[in-house]
Amino acid sequence: MVANKEHNYSIIVQKYGGTSVGDIERIRKVANRISHYVEKGHKVAVTVSAMGAMTDRLVALAKEISTRPSKRELDVLMATGEQQSIALVSMMLLHKGIKARSFTGQQAGFLTDSRSGAARIIEVNPKSVLEAFKEFDVVVVAGFQGVDEFGNITTLGRGGSDTTAVAIAAALGATECEIYTDTDGIYTTDPHKVQTATKIDNIDYDEMLELASLGAGVLHPRAVWYARRYGVVIHVRSSFSYAKGSLVSDIKENIVKTDKPVTGVALDLGIARVDLLEVPDKPGIAAEVFAALGEAGISADMIIQGVPGDEASRQQMAFTIDKDQAEYATEAISSVLDTIGGHFSIDKNIAKLSVVGIAVGSTPGVAARVFKAVSSAAANIQMITTSEVRVSVVIADDKAKAALKAVHSEFDLDSKS
Amino acid sequence: MVANKEHNYSIIVQKYGGTSVGDIERIRKVANRISHYVEKGHKVAVTVSAMGAMTDRLVALAKEISTRPSKRELDVLMATGEQQSIALVSMMLLHKGIKARSFTGQQAGFLTDSRSGAARIIEVNPKSVLEAFKEFDVVVVAGFQGVDEFGNITTLGRGGSDTTAVAIAAALGATECEIYTDTDGIYTTDPHKVQTATKIDNIDYDEMLELASLGAGVLHPRAVWYARRYGVVIHVRSSFSYAKGSLVSDIKENIVKTDKPVTGVALDLGIARVDLLEVPDKPGIAAEVFAALGEAGISADMIIQGVPGDEASRQQMAFTIDKDQAEYATEAISSVLDTIGGHFSIDKNIAKLSVVGIAVGSTPGVAARVFKAVSSAAANIQMITTSEVRVSVVIADDKAKAALKAVHSEFDLDSKS
Repeated sequence: MVANKEHNYSIIVQKYGGTSVGDIERIRKVANRISHYVEKGHKVAVTVSAMGAMTDRLVALAKEISTRPSKRELDVLMATGEQQSIALVSMMLLHKGIKARSFTGQQAGFLTDSRSGAARIIEVNPKSVLEAFKEFDVVVVAGFQGVDEFGNITTLGRGGSDTTAVAIAAALGATECEIYTDTDGIYTTDPHKVQTATKIDNIDYDEMLELASLGAGVLHPRAVWYARRYGVVIHVRSSFSYAKGSLVSDIKENIVKTDKPVTGVALDLGIARVDLLEVPDKPGIAAEVFAALGEAGISADMIIQGVPGDEASRQQMAFTIDKDQAEYATEAISSVLDTIGGHFSIDKNIAKLSVVGIAVGSTPGVAARVFKAVSSAAANIQMITTSEVRVSVVIADDKAKAALKAVHSEFDLDSKS
Repeated sequence: MVANKEHNYSIIVQKYGGTSVGDIERIRKVANRISHYVEKGHKVAVTVSAMGAMTDRLVALAKEISTRPSKRELDVLMATGEQQSIALVSMMLLHKGIKARSFTGQQAGFLTDSRSGAARIIEVNPKSVLEAFKEFDVVVVAGFQGVDEFGNITTLGRGGSDTTAVAIAAALGATECEIYTDTDGIYTTDPHKVQTATKIDNIDYDEMLELASLGAGVLHPRAVWYARRYGVVIHVRSSFSYAKGSLVSDIKENIVKTDKPVTGVALDLGIARVDLLEVPDKPGIAAEVFAALGEAGISADMIIQGVPGDEASRQQMAFTIDKDQAEYATEAISSVLDTIGGHFSIDKNIAKLSVVGIAVGSTPGVAARVFKAVSSAAANIQMITTSEVRVSVVIADDKAKAALKAVHSEFDLDSKS
């Protein structure tokens, strides 16, 4: 919320995801909730995602054309989903007699770079939105989208609407951004997968960044990064109640020492493992592969490089990528290996399990306890990475859920009920 | 087609309607057709409508919210339909290895006035499209849409994609604009309603304007008006063959005298009749009603004003409007009559039947023959209007098809087969 002294009103920033606006009845509920704040005298800046079913429908259409559709045109296509949502939510608010106006990403002043499908926000110019608040009580901004300097439509990639909401909050000088979901906050792990998961009241940006980027699925990592950078507190809460949810903020300094080094456990099923086999062991080969992936807009995550084996001049390397970029990766890697030799394989049947906590790096034995718990679920550990605040392992996806439960229990995160 | 001497290429302008891009298989056929011209060395400027089913889906969503949804937000919603089409058609062309790029109305330089749902084109700046032709062989422009001077998304109203295509042709200096449909040209009447309808090879702008605005449904009247103004020949042809279709151009001067004064017969089922009853008979009342309608973006078409009856101070007036604007009209008229008195009714079960031909006004007896044929189909004539090139009558819609057949026969338009 931000108090605007000049105009004597405060602005509340809210984001509603694809499930919350999934059909007209749900949109009606969202409008009711927004009205609640307008009636209290607030101005509300709302960000909405595409209706859940619409996104799937659009992706299906593109995939009917090509397994690797043009990324620029995919952005033009996908951006229509959020545009439909802003129109429908604004219509509903107007129908209820609330002064509301929709804004596409472009209209709301979102300038991004030109990376189709994974664009980054360069600047948010809040001029039009602030101007609109003179006449309207609610502005409804399309999440997930912007335009580049040439006027091309861009999208921010998976979960980009969270980032839009936080960026709006930052641009308007709001100190808090409400992210509405179908659960009442952030949990120690996905409650759909582990029923004993417990709600977290307060979590640090750094912990949340790891949980977000590791597949907890509640918040988009770039949104958390953006919030940390601009000091925006993220309030993850339920669209079904007015109860307080989970607050993501800078609590590292104030944290109370606890006997629980792990705050949460994340499971990411959206990754694939790429193995490069028998590629020439020459300097610069890795750089060439990752340059090709970078050009295709693909980030490699966990990277391991094997010790040269019997064939001393050939080496192995493995890394993980987003599963849904596997087709593009195949093309990019093929073009490099065609020139330098070697071959590769992609395994989509893997999962990454991670434990996260501010004290993970400073607490001895956390990694050992993770390995023990994973083993107790009969899962083989294929890859390992660690950082100050987390330990991640890659395992086969058919063992993932059992391993998640074991790790969640190991660190005393199960609810007592 | 326009020859660009500087760059040594010619530009073909084509428009594909909602049926032609109705699903991915049809989009594939459209792409094949466009490829045919690219392979011959042409540049192609394509305009596409929304996928047929998508338009219906979006309208249904808006109607779930309100019978009279916000017109501004309806434009934001509807514009997504064409945006999806340009993305999908461009994807398909790129998938076939053709250099293509999509353009929203805004990106293609369409500046309109601010009349939501029925905006008029103020200017088309072809700079971006011409720039794109340096790198791309096909530009795919979203029909039906533009932006106003404030950056609001606007739509051109029903059939606006035809207008977009003609405006693109005019802006690029092309002399012809191809409009693809599911029939092989323009017919003496709707072949779905009258099987003996015959194809017209050449038709004058003025005749087509009347047929278009009177519900022939093949071309949008504003497109014809735009084509006449800029001297663009419209070529209405089938997307299933390469045969010549019907040419709409300025042929009035060259027309060969014929014994058939009527070129075509149109039937418009999309109108409603408004009756104002017992409104005070004072100067300026009509102006007040039509001003309110105008503000709501509603045009009244046929207007008749009754002779004052027994109550000398009260009068009657009737006019026709678009059926789908009936809700807005109800609101606009109510607000006026609440103040000045009187009441009104709206009858949606009517149809307008019109005969059109350059020689209609100069051929005695055309109107009489229309009335006779309509009567032979047991239809009562409710309203009549005539102009130099047409005679129109309003009848009950359940008699319309029989009357259409009778009139079509009366003027010897039936095919001989």
